[in-house]
Amino acid sequence: MTLNVTAALCIIGNEILSGRTQDRNIAFLGNGLNEIGIQLLEVRIVPDIRDEIVDAVNALRARYDYVFTTGGIGPTHDDITPESIAAAFGTEWHYHPESFRRMAAWYDGRGQEFTEARKRMTITPVGAELVDNTVSIAPGFRMDNVFVFAGVPQIMRSMFEAAKPSLRRGTVIHSRSLSTHLAEGVLAEGLGAVQQRFPELDLGSYPFYNTEKGTGVALVVRGADRGRIDAAAAEIFTFVEELGGEVIEDNAN
Amino acid sequence: MTLNVTAALCIIGNEILSGRTQDRNIAFLGNGLNEIGIQLLEVRIVPDIRDEIVDAVNALRARYDYVFTTGGIGPTHDDITPESIAAAFGTEWHYHPESFRRMAAWYDGRGQEFTEARKRMTITPVGAELVDNTVSIAPGFRMDNVFVFAGVPQIMRSMFEAAKPSLRRGTVIHSRSLSTHLAEGVLAEGLGAVQQRFPELDLGSYPFYNTEKGTGVALVVRGADRGRIDAAAAEIFTFVEELGGEVIEDNAN
Repeated sequence: MTLNVTAALCIIGNEILSGRTQDRNIAFLGNGLNEIGIQLLEVRIVPDIRDEIVDAVNALRARYDYVFTTGGIGPTHDDITPESIAAAFGTEWHYHPESFRRMAAWYDGRGQEFTEARKRMTITPVGAELVDNTVSIAPGFRMDNVFVFAGVPQIMRSMFEAAKPSLRRGTVIHSRSLSTHLAEGVLAEGLGAVQQRFPELDLGSYPFYNTEKGTGVALVVRGADRGRIDAAAAEIFTFVEELGGEVIEDNAN
Repeated sequence: MTLNVTAALCIIGNEILSGRTQDRNIAFLGNGLNEIGIQLLEVRIVPDIRDEIVDAVNALRARYDYVFTTGGIGPTHDDITPESIAAAFGTEWHYHPESFRRMAAWYDGRGQEFTEARKRMTITPVGAELVDNTVSIAPGFRMDNVFVFAGVPQIMRSMFEAAKPSLRRGTVIHSRSLSTHLAEGVLAEGLGAVQQRFPELDLGSYPFYNTEKGTGVALVVRGADRGRIDAAAAEIFTFVEELGGEVIEDNAN
């Protein structure tokens, strides 16, 4: 029996939409959730506009077990995520007392001023729980099933590690990826036949062009049962060879 | 006077959600649209499930001037984007006659069979116009304000170049990015003051950690008027220096 636990990611980031910053959080979170049996089923990237954040978070939190947001929790005027999450939940926000205490001590210990801007980093909706940040102290937080993380990848990862023990784990989806230089159009029929014989698995076909391994296709088999994945992979090996090709790479995880 | 032209991107891709594949299309499209005065305002990444694609495309095409989809237009069983776009528009799909002719000639010229799987690559909703692909022949298509592109970055880029002349252009948003080693909490007050004096510009603050330029913050000024951007940048230079810092990098585009 498989237990599905689902998640969505909401990236709050003008800098991702404008193309200035290359996203590095989606693949990390997709992999990180996979490892603990949670499936990332949707990502939305929205601008730093309160109503956009509210609408996206409310749509996603109603639909998935968990929502992770990244971005917009710093000290500057464009960091509006905490207030927006409070608005999404229809609650007030405050300077979270424990966060405020930690941050005040941190700046005090460095002889730096705990400015009004820095106090903004302690804002959470009333009722939120903190999520620790071992990189740069200012915490993220959790409100119900919504986790609010920083956008900077190193900090996001630290917050994800801190949040992990509190996440409900589902059935881990394993995968095996077989690459070949054959064309997708040549492989399609055989692949479709394997998919029909293994309806509980998810077979995907991903062409690659002029990469370090040349041009070809990665055939990816995903599912909960490693035995079934290996059985499907064996059939793929067979039909690739029957087509006169070979499997040039075979990765499992 | 500025002319806003808006766009959204819908990525159809289990392989992006699972973390197997690092996205390389968002930043490319964000930049490419920016250059012709179109603002990318939303991205959604959905799995290869028909109803998910239909819902996302219908939500986005009602809201933005253009929608671009990537992924799911190949020959294999998991390539369901063209049929899903037809369903989103409530129209039938067919083997597009011109696409069919091109593809048949392509395989004929190579002495390869134009298999049933390969014929799938000519599927479009009835009424769609083709978008050329100079990399691997199989075309993308346009249906009303929705452009359907491949997910492989090289092919997506070829299709975007082909589609570009048909896109309505808006006011180009320029930007200037000033980096400093000062902390965001130190910069926030001055940055907020500049934002208030330049309400028509969009000022963003993006921390970076342990990168090739060290740790610090990129202050990004965006707007339609280069003169105003430069005036705001001059104020940023001044307050960064007043705070005892320096601008270590200054990029305009």
